Amino acid sequence: MQVSRRAFLSAVAAASLSASVRASATRRWAPAVDAARLRRRVEQLSAFGRPPQGTFDSGVSRVAYSDADISARAWLLGEMRGAGLEPRVDAAGNIFARWGPENAQPPILFGSHIDSVPSGGNFDGDLGSLAALEVMQACQTAGVTSRRPFEMVVWAHEESTAFGSGTAASRIVAGDLAAGVLDQEWNGLRRAEAIRRIGGDPARIEEAVRANGAWHSYLELHIEQGGTLDRSGVPIGIVEGIVAIHRYDVDVTGFANHAGTTPMDERQDALQAASMMVLAVREMVTARQGRQVGTVGRMEVEPNSPNVVPGRVRLSVEFRDLSEATLIALGEDLRARADRIARESRTTITATLATKNPAAPAHSGVQAVIERAAEAAGLAARRLPSGAGHDAQMIAALCPMGMIFVPSIGGISHSPKERTGWDDCARGAAVLLGAVLELDQRADV
Amino acid sequence: MQVSRRAFLSAVAAASLSASVRASATRRWAPAVDAARLRRRVEQLSAFGRPPQGTFDSGVSRVAYSDADISARAWLLGEMRGAGLEPRVDAAGNIFARWGPENAQPPILFGSHIDSVPSGGNFDGDLGSLAALEVMQACQTAGVTSRRPFEMVVWAHEESTAFGSGTAASRIVAGDLAAGVLDQEWNGLRRAEAIRRIGGDPARIEEAVRANGAWHSYLELHIEQGGTLDRSGVPIGIVEGIVAIHRYDVDVTGFANHAGTTPMDERQDALQAASMMVLAVREMVTARQGRQVGTVGRMEVEPNSPNVVPGRVRLSVEFRDLSEATLIALGEDLRARADRIARESRTTITATLATKNPAAPAHSGVQAVIERAAEAAGLAARRLPSGAGHDAQMIAALCPMGMIFVPSIGGISHSPKERTGWDDCARGAAVLLGAVLELDQRADV
Repeated sequence: MQVSRRAFLSAVAAASLSASVRASATRRWAPAVDAARLRRRVEQLSAFGRPPQGTFDSGVSRVAYSDADISARAWLLGEMRGAGLEPRVDAAGNIFARWGPENAQPPILFGSHIDSVPSGGNFDGDLGSLAALEVMQACQTAGVTSRRPFEMVVWAHEESTAFGSGTAASRIVAGDLAAGVLDQEWNGLRRAEAIRRIGGDPARIEEAVRANGAWHSYLELHIEQGGTLDRSGVPIGIVEGIVAIHRYDVDVTGFANHAGTTPMDERQDALQAASMMVLAVREMVTARQGRQVGTVGRMEVEPNSPNVVPGRVRLSVEFRDLSEATLIALGEDLRARADRIARESRTTITATLATKNPAAPAHSGVQAVIERAAEAAGLAARRLPSGAGHDAQMIAALCPMGMIFVPSIGGISHSPKERTGWDDCARGAAVLLGAVLELDQRADV
Repeated sequence: MQVSRRAFLSAVAAASLSASVRASATRRWAPAVDAARLRRRVEQLSAFGRPPQGTFDSGVSRVAYSDADISARAWLLGEMRGAGLEPRVDAAGNIFARWGPENAQPPILFGSHIDSVPSGGNFDGDLGSLAALEVMQACQTAGVTSRRPFEMVVWAHEESTAFGSGTAASRIVAGDLAAGVLDQEWNGLRRAEAIRRIGGDPARIEEAVRANGAWHSYLELHIEQGGTLDRSGVPIGIVEGIVAIHRYDVDVTGFANHAGTTPMDERQDALQAASMMVLAVREMVTARQGRQVGTVGRMEVEPNSPNVVPGRVRLSVEFRDLSEATLIALGEDLRARADRIARESRTTITATLATKNPAAPAHSGVQAVIERAAEAAGLAARRLPSGAGHDAQMIAALCPMGMIFVPSIGGISHSPKERTGWDDCARGAAVLLGAVLELDQRADV
């Protein structure tokens, strides 16, 4: 680009000061995010998947491939076209758009996702996606001439609700395309059909796979989803790495029987056994030193009638930690506890490792770039791990990766109460812009 | 009727001996059930609500007001008409048909229901309903002339799945018509619309209410659904009474949050608390002397996603015993445990008494009639309480009530594995027939 390093850093600093700051007329060459436009877009996007009669405060249910997801994607494509971009949807359903020189240099990629968990919030994914669009527009408006193409991305399916596992579309891009994955079913929907619903092309899915080095680097702005930044009053988080996740499908089989006529000592109650498993997960996780977490988030009871002793219960168990060794040990604990509980309750319990996301360290050079962009903007920053999974962990296999976190008020996320202050949203977008511009100046990271 | 007491008792005995016994040509005046026809009808009825590609062994899901229920009712009305009866559907959706003299005497009523729990069996309700039809046909075929009208009934909604509580249509007949009941919603279906779906008339629902003394007596043949008869090898059970049921809706509110970023000690996990409640229900029930039972059969987790700490769980808790005092004490235990668990888990737990069915003793005179009918058929019988609720407990408010039980193999019920031997089905129908005929002989019971 043609602006001096000093000039663009002061522009970034200006952008971060308030929600209404823009490049002034006297230095229209300095790119800056439009905080008001960013906010308006976050608010507009919140309408897709909002509960009936709800408000922004009601959160969203915008599960990947749902009608809400499809209509939100259509709106986003419109915003991108309105900003002069030419978005394309790859075979996996990911939305990409490029800007800048049409040369052979690998682009700098940045973005996030807009799908949500059921009853989720309006910042998880949405902020990073719309901030990426803001970076594109800011560079365009300021007439930046970059060395490398800039590319924004909105990953198609990040949350774990659909088909029981997340970061699914970036996973395909990273080349992890398991046999039979397109035939998987979820709520009666085949994955191939799901991908077709959002404009992907399952017949050509392998075209979505990208080679190592396809991009110069990848950046993702995201809300922290934990309370570290909020508690410490630090506006910018520099992610050191993303924790590994091991997720198990646990299946408890007892015997369905009449709740009135089956004496207590003759029952093989799958829900009693499942409840023991739920408590055991918490016990085994908290019994160890460390910051590992374990969660039972989903439970399905059959036949789920008040007057029937439950015959079968299926539940999800997931463990997260930066250390794979800890997760392996927890998996062993889980199976041992399952065996013991099955014997005690006269049920059968199986625990199958369903998803295994490796830990993904952020690139040290990209971390340093983010740190300098925050510093140039006059913003305090701290390093921290990400307890949440992100598409960034998939793309880390293809190019140097870094993530920028902004505070989640009260550490709340995956909830309608998920909030990030609008000023913090603008600060995060400004640091994203600054980091992209600095990465463009570097031969390597 | 015109046959001698001795003649009809020997006919009953004959009917009970095998599945193919009928009144022989030389005594065509003696009414007897057609065991083969009864079996054929049970098998035919099993097709309505059977899982796709299933067999008789796959059980049925024939929840009241479902498409399966509606089509089964249509089939049954056809069978009744084919047997020369003129069925009518009352305003609550119950199916009635009369036979015999058109005099002012209160009829002898007998029947059961054909709705099921999800993934239920082919005998619960079906046997008693089709045996009632068999009694009507047996009397008709034999040219019985009764003193009183005989009336068969198939109650519309016995199981607790629809609208969360059962014996709902017989409850209306007994005059328990709570304000607003027609406006209740279940899975988006209003109860008024549900009743209309099965041919009832919610606008005239009060016409379904019957006065005390509307019937001379009520008999219901049913599978035991417990293992007492099967274990003891006794083919006929004489029910002493039906246990009281207290059912609670328990609502656990925690705080939905991200499963990766919320440390274990900051969670307000509704599913951890709910699991403690599930275990507490078993503990409090088994800690007491007696035969009371307690069941958590239903649980709904929100948002029910593997990567979200559950924010809310709703569960059903029901207690059953012949003693109301025991149930009241268990309800107090439940609230005390809920308070303690809420404090420990930093959640809010409410327990609301949603359904309260009083215990219903069977009439001693009707019990004696059943005993004599079994004896005359050469069948061993024993008295026992019913742990399951039945429409009989509602109709006990209107007239003397009695129930006949036949063995459930292994005590299994509310399950596709629910079974009663075909010989035992025929024996039960024969005792029902014998008891109806003897009741007809009596001025009172």
